Amino acid sequence: MPFTDSDLQHPLDKRDPLAALRQEFHIPANTIYFDGNSLGLLSHRVQERVTQTLQKQWGNDVITSWNKHNWINLPLTIGDKIGHLIGAPKGHTVCCDSTSINLFKVLSAALQLNDGRAEVLSTEDNFPTDLYMVQGLHQLLGERCTLRLVPEGELLNSISSETAVVLATEVNFRTGRRLPLTKLSKKAREQGALTIIDLAHSAGAMPVELLNHDIDFAIGCTYKYLNAGPGAPAFLYVAPRHLTDNVKPLQPLFGWLGHAQPFEFSVDYAPADGIRQFITGTPPILALAAVDAALDIFNGVDMAELREKSVGLSNYWLERMAAEGLLEQMPSISPSEAEERGSQLAFEHEHAFAICQALIAEGIIADFRAPKYLRIGFSPLYNTYAEVKQAVAALADIVHKHHYEREEFQQRNAVT
Amino acid sequence: MPFTDSDLQHPLDKRDPLAALRQEFHIPANTIYFDGNSLGLLSHRVQERVTQTLQKQWGNDVITSWNKHNWINLPLTIGDKIGHLIGAPKGHTVCCDSTSINLFKVLSAALQLNDGRAEVLSTEDNFPTDLYMVQGLHQLLGERCTLRLVPEGELLNSISSETAVVLATEVNFRTGRRLPLTKLSKKAREQGALTIIDLAHSAGAMPVELLNHDIDFAIGCTYKYLNAGPGAPAFLYVAPRHLTDNVKPLQPLFGWLGHAQPFEFSVDYAPADGIRQFITGTPPILALAAVDAALDIFNGVDMAELREKSVGLSNYWLERMAAEGLLEQMPSISPSEAEERGSQLAFEHEHAFAICQALIAEGIIADFRAPKYLRIGFSPLYNTYAEVKQAVAALADIVHKHHYEREEFQQRNAVT
Repeated sequence: MPFTDSDLQHPLDKRDPLAALRQEFHIPANTIYFDGNSLGLLSHRVQERVTQTLQKQWGNDVITSWNKHNWINLPLTIGDKIGHLIGAPKGHTVCCDSTSINLFKVLSAALQLNDGRAEVLSTEDNFPTDLYMVQGLHQLLGERCTLRLVPEGELLNSISSETAVVLATEVNFRTGRRLPLTKLSKKAREQGALTIIDLAHSAGAMPVELLNHDIDFAIGCTYKYLNAGPGAPAFLYVAPRHLTDNVKPLQPLFGWLGHAQPFEFSVDYAPADGIRQFITGTPPILALAAVDAALDIFNGVDMAELREKSVGLSNYWLERMAAEGLLEQMPSISPSEAEERGSQLAFEHEHAFAICQALIAEGIIADFRAPKYLRIGFSPLYNTYAEVKQAVAALADIVHKHHYEREEFQQRNAVT
Repeated sequence: MPFTDSDLQHPLDKRDPLAALRQEFHIPANTIYFDGNSLGLLSHRVQERVTQTLQKQWGNDVITSWNKHNWINLPLTIGDKIGHLIGAPKGHTVCCDSTSINLFKVLSAALQLNDGRAEVLSTEDNFPTDLYMVQGLHQLLGERCTLRLVPEGELLNSISSETAVVLATEVNFRTGRRLPLTKLSKKAREQGALTIIDLAHSAGAMPVELLNHDIDFAIGCTYKYLNAGPGAPAFLYVAPRHLTDNVKPLQPLFGWLGHAQPFEFSVDYAPADGIRQFITGTPPILALAAVDAALDIFNGVDMAELREKSVGLSNYWLERMAAEGLLEQMPSISPSEAEERGSQLAFEHEHAFAICQALIAEGIIADFRAPKYLRIGFSPLYNTYAEVKQAVAALADIVHKHHYEREEFQQRNAVT
């Protein structure tokens, strides 16, 4: 099923105010890509910036680039660009390490700030690495850090005066359900609990208002809707109220670049002012250059328009599934109301894995999540309505004609 | 002082069996680079590999690259390439995160394995981030993790039955002094202490024999003598004796990619077999591609020859300094016996900062380390004897004629 330019002339695409942004990206040949919630596409800007960083900065200017090209401050300057997309004031977001490592930092900080409480309250179907990091901190701290898991629907009512930290991912990685941050934050505040929000499936896909929602800490990745490349550095946010005292270290990963005077090489750790103390090791410059360039695509993008397109794409997908008679055979496990969703849909089918493989064989990239879900991510910067129409038509063919039963689609790989 | 091709016709370079390797690197124009112990040079292989990874792998194959190009196993396949250079058996080295984060993992592991002991013994002039990470773990664990610092010369005799972990950097970042790993390891074993060795200034600069020296854990960076780029991912090594039991997690940063079955997305952490459990978050692929290509330059390189050239370059530097009458004015603080040194020299001068700036103004890149040291790093893969001769001549000019007194050389930047 080759994809032709004429397919792009969908009436909904012609009315899309963000349509021109698709040109920013390298669209793989003969491919419809609905997996931007796992790994966003390469953009021309990122390719140019990384090449320039290699040749001109590292290659020619070598060590002098730490000052000359301000490498040393990239975690903070990029942090502010991310902060702009998630409703953070300047100086409260940093780009570094992985989401897991950054969670360890803010989790330690939150437990230290909420001294006397130990319970980290989260949801049973939170993304596993978030739960694992709490279990790891429990291994170190014992009863000073305990993990309590509840079903997602019971999270709000489970926040109590025992709760030290509410740890929630805004958008569920399987179902795409979006949690109500305002309510969670308000209830947490009432009960004296702190909030840590994982924005992995939010940042770059929809407006986020961390300061307005009074969130204490946030973490997230840049390789999904921010399109910064596979395993790109993650980010973390700390609310202004927690960055007022720079005497006592907030987090325990005391790296030299979180030190107040790193080039004094003193024997004793003293935290830098503000968010800088959340930096640990030497910043990964090639990877940060990619993040920096990827974020520039958001310059001038109205996040409300972005969200409108995201909702438009997912609603149109559901509409086409209904028209093709697919929703009975593979029902949606995502909320039917768009305002309760992130920027993805997921569908249940006993043969979801093989269906996903059959789609990939047609050049339509989606992903499978165990045990039986087909996951479709919508990246409003580059996905089109024409792609939705064509992908659902292909899906209908695969499901109605049982193409997924072919042996070639059954074999499981390490990563899907 | 322009650098000309004829300067490369030094008799010692003509006899150098590694001379051809210089062509692998992008040598910045009009520059003599003696700062490879801070940031190694870009190579053509790295530039090509990163470009290919951007365009062909991420750009065209996107998410399928996790399997198709074996991204998912890069931390381990690269780990083994590093392992080959540091005397590690296959399957015991992993490339991930930063040196600081990796130290946190192995430090936690060592303290857990040596249960009942709390003392981390290190040297007063160890690289600060190593000491800070112990202080950070102390913040979490209290009296279960304490840091005891002794002068470098007293380290060996300070190892006692109280010592849980000996934490030492093989080559001192200021003086270049190389610690005797065999003796340290033997004494630690006798006293029931475990060893963690920081190889930041060893890996890629000289032969390292971790297994033969019976070292328990090692960490190190790849952006110095391994030439993998600014802030490139670090490595860690765990001795075979500690990787036999895969039931109990060894380290507390429980990331999803250290899980036995990461794509099962189960709620409870279970460590992967072997070294894989030391992986935390999603691997940074662009950065790892650079490491992978940088390591290929070592294919077929005899590490004994590499060491011989390193010693040759530093001895020739000292010889030229003596001939120029410089050693009285700026004495070496490095050991005079080459076997007691890493691949660098350092010199003391009240105006070392300004002298370094004056050298840089001549296109000769060295670095300054507080409070008063000029540091010269020798990268045997690309430095030449002709460069040594020319750099020392320039240094003599600067020192004897007091050029460093010019105001332009006094101002201090953030990173030097």
